[in-house]
Amino acid sequence: MSQLIRIKTALISVSDKTGVSELAQVLNDFDCKIISTGGTRKKIEEANIPVVEISKVTGNPEAFGGRMKTISFNIESALLFDREKDKEEAESLNIEPIDLVICNLYPFQKVLEQGADFETLIENVDIGGPTMIRAAAKNFKYVAVITEPSDYENLIKELKENEGCLSYETRKKLMAKAFNHTADYDALIATTMDKENEIHSYRVAYEAGYPLRYGENSHQKATFYKQKNQENTLFDIEILHGKALSYNNILDVNAAIESVKENTKTACSVIKHSNPCGLCEGDNQAKVLEQAWAGDPISAFGSIIAFNTKLEKETVEFFQLNNSDKSQRKFIEVVIAPDYSEEALAYLQYHKNLRILRFNPKHLNAKTELRPLNGALLIQDTDQVLYEKMEVVTSINAAIENEKNIIEFGLKALKNIKSNSIAIVRKKDGYHQLLGMGAGQPNRLIATKLAIEKSRTNLQNEFEGEEEAFESYYKQEMNNAFLLSDAFFPFADNVELAAQYGITKIVQPGGSIRDKSVIEVCNDLGITMVFTGTRHFKH
Amino acid sequence: MSQLIRIKTALISVSDKTGVSELAQVLNDFDCKIISTGGTRKKIEEANIPVVEISKVTGNPEAFGGRMKTISFNIESALLFDREKDKEEAESLNIEPIDLVICNLYPFQKVLEQGADFETLIENVDIGGPTMIRAAAKNFKYVAVITEPSDYENLIKELKENEGCLSYETRKKLMAKAFNHTADYDALIATTMDKENEIHSYRVAYEAGYPLRYGENSHQKATFYKQKNQENTLFDIEILHGKALSYNNILDVNAAIESVKENTKTACSVIKHSNPCGLCEGDNQAKVLEQAWAGDPISAFGSIIAFNTKLEKETVEFFQLNNSDKSQRKFIEVVIAPDYSEEALAYLQYHKNLRILRFNPKHLNAKTELRPLNGALLIQDTDQVLYEKMEVVTSINAAIENEKNIIEFGLKALKNIKSNSIAIVRKKDGYHQLLGMGAGQPNRLIATKLAIEKSRTNLQNEFEGEEEAFESYYKQEMNNAFLLSDAFFPFADNVELAAQYGITKIVQPGGSIRDKSVIEVCNDLGITMVFTGTRHFKH
Repeated sequence: MSQLIRIKTALISVSDKTGVSELAQVLNDFDCKIISTGGTRKKIEEANIPVVEISKVTGNPEAFGGRMKTISFNIESALLFDREKDKEEAESLNIEPIDLVICNLYPFQKVLEQGADFETLIENVDIGGPTMIRAAAKNFKYVAVITEPSDYENLIKELKENEGCLSYETRKKLMAKAFNHTADYDALIATTMDKENEIHSYRVAYEAGYPLRYGENSHQKATFYKQKNQENTLFDIEILHGKALSYNNILDVNAAIESVKENTKTACSVIKHSNPCGLCEGDNQAKVLEQAWAGDPISAFGSIIAFNTKLEKETVEFFQLNNSDKSQRKFIEVVIAPDYSEEALAYLQYHKNLRILRFNPKHLNAKTELRPLNGALLIQDTDQVLYEKMEVVTSINAAIENEKNIIEFGLKALKNIKSNSIAIVRKKDGYHQLLGMGAGQPNRLIATKLAIEKSRTNLQNEFEGEEEAFESYYKQEMNNAFLLSDAFFPFADNVELAAQYGITKIVQPGGSIRDKSVIEVCNDLGITMVFTGTRHFKH
Repeated sequence: MSQLIRIKTALISVSDKTGVSELAQVLNDFDCKIISTGGTRKKIEEANIPVVEISKVTGNPEAFGGRMKTISFNIESALLFDREKDKEEAESLNIEPIDLVICNLYPFQKVLEQGADFETLIENVDIGGPTMIRAAAKNFKYVAVITEPSDYENLIKELKENEGCLSYETRKKLMAKAFNHTADYDALIATTMDKENEIHSYRVAYEAGYPLRYGENSHQKATFYKQKNQENTLFDIEILHGKALSYNNILDVNAAIESVKENTKTACSVIKHSNPCGLCEGDNQAKVLEQAWAGDPISAFGSIIAFNTKLEKETVEFFQLNNSDKSQRKFIEVVIAPDYSEEALAYLQYHKNLRILRFNPKHLNAKTELRPLNGALLIQDTDQVLYEKMEVVTSINAAIENEKNIIEFGLKALKNIKSNSIAIVRKKDGYHQLLGMGAGQPNRLIATKLAIEKSRTNLQNEFEGEEEAFESYYKQEMNNAFLLSDAFFPFADNVELAAQYGITKIVQPGGSIRDKSVIEVCNDLGITMVFTGTRHFKH
């Protein structure tokens, strides 16, 4: 089925001249006639390669300031006629076949990005180029079409391998690529022209898709794609080891990366069902992992864990993957880090199924996020404002002016936990740790309760003294901790509950009509309350 | 700025002939010369309107089985030349301007949907049409272009109003529409041809966007769009009354509709932060609302509520919106129903800010869902399998063969609650009610705990007897209830916890390596356990 076609005549008309002389040389070596336009022709002639001026073929002059160069009965016929059925008709009309089109389009995107005016934009809408490209693609049975200099290398390679011929498979692939090229081109023109008409439209294209084993559940089929022309996407994660990622892995990997991407110190997040149930930042990576894990040591089993710094062996030894006592091994599903020391990577591979991913969280910096909903779409800016202010609103003030870092850590945690969310964070031995969190609750009071209960359990786990001494340890730790709320408290009930369990420092956006009474309750209960002015709902 | 252009010459070449004679008649009435191709020409001539055959203008024959009809130096020059700068050049080349193009393309989409073979698909890729359309659009300063019969009516109207002329504004709008048309056309061709190359690609276009006040939080900008060529989208909701929907409203409206769309009886869902915290189905709508509300009467304040049947006044009186005691009024954010009785609608409007939406949940039937993640995209089938089997796996069997309806109700609830999720449902007076739920927890045990605690609170709220009698009432209700889990239990701890609180009937997918020991614990504790074989993760 290779159906080789000899490239006897090529039409070259490019706005990006990269590599065009070299390509023309190869074509010339195979005795291919080259037809070309204006600047392209000059460039090829400079390399001493014979070129036929396109007007010789079209029979028409270049006209109207270059708006008419290639479009003609002769050129499009030469591309479109069926080499079998239409052979005689073509001969009688003196149409000689063109077998290859090398064309790229007026740089609409480039001039748009340069902020060109409307008239320049319009002038950069290519008409002749898409016509040639689409005509050649339609007739791919006999014609090959190239739209990007990056494809020259493969083209040259195949021409050399096949002594100046191209295969059906290649022409078919190039055909699909060509229609993608014109689809992308008109997509950008369409949304730009809508904008000029004050119409909001949005187009997006995805490529390189591959089917996953299944979706969120085994009865759901799923496919994973990469957005076209986007760098640093979640799709670009390198899989160094382990089984293929599942649909739910991908969701959690995204949440894990999001949860450590803003931290400036070494940070580690532990994700279960898209929520960080453990999070820590500090200097020593091993200690950071240990304290992140301690945020929910039960849920951490089977979790997805991300780091924002190169992973070292002494850190990952925490997982005890080669412990002869299997019950001591801490199995996780996925680990993500910007890089791995050779020893760390080797150690992690003790766990045969562990997905080991390389990706730098800092590279995930999308400015907008899309939320398709049953044939509708929400697009919003990503949540990039941590806080507007840090204002103590109570008469009580536990000198938290010096605690900006731990509050910032808490806000970064909070914005990655599903709403309603409450986070309790603490500073301990120089580390910032998520001590407990409540996620995804219809009722904020229950989120608060969950965060408090989890904190208590975790403090019990870490406490090593006599049982009687625990309550005072507990109280001391809760006193020092900060409780943060993703949205304002509609009533004082959350504050009262938190106070009962020893919380003395609360951070919330403020903005409720009952702020005043909430502040009064804080003052009565000895609580310092900070308003940030910035809500962090996440759903 | 209206810059009227007189339409002296029109080129008409359409595959869809709807309304084309009527349009030609109007053009003829304004002494407009009509140029046309093959079948279109015939159709117009049949209406006794003079037409110039296109080959008279191109100077070329129609060739190659129709592949070459319009593409020519003369036609595209007539569309593209600048009526001011290029005037003399056009005259010297004998190019007469064409002022209007009416063109629609070979029906690629139609033949694709009809399951045409590859060759037919290729033959239905239009080359000449897009060239004319794009050339006319580029030169919109002087030329108008129409791509859809649905635009004829406005065209005729404006021609009549302006005595055969079209305004700049109209031409500019039509230009944007034209590029959208060719972008859509090539988008479909590109993905189809990718598929032929076994490449997975995906393109989607959204239109009719409008900015929301803000996104999930006030520091995030947001826009809401409709997917092109989709019917029954979330965007199609009719807003009958109230303030504009917010970003978070839209998320919750979607969740609310999803939560009642599969119920066959009258159903009502109460949504907070994307989770149903109340859900009920039964015969009497007023009672259904009452019992849905009772699922979480605290969170229900400020919630989003959806119904799957026409809303009646006696139902909505539950909200007591005109109660002179303001504390008795139950304020919600949004109500959605397929329709409203006149009285119900009038009553709901007592609440000035309430968003009253009309939409039939049954119309939301997307087969796939999209999940963009930082420049990547997950596409999966929607979760459409409720259960694969309903198998009692314990030796204990509380005759639940007769309880299929309540289990189905529970599974429908479960699949709409964020994972990990646990739902406790009961049958009471012929109604199916979500008694309590636990949502979005990293640890399943905590989800179970939340569902149990909420159930207990709700039973306390409804209990009207002596305090001492409550425990036996509680036990009886929990005994009769079903606890459902979205995924299997990895350990027996959930079962043990549920048993402590009186649960005797548990439904879960099964599939854990420890199923056997979980079943044994059930047998020991007098619990009937059903395996469905179908997990319902949702994130």
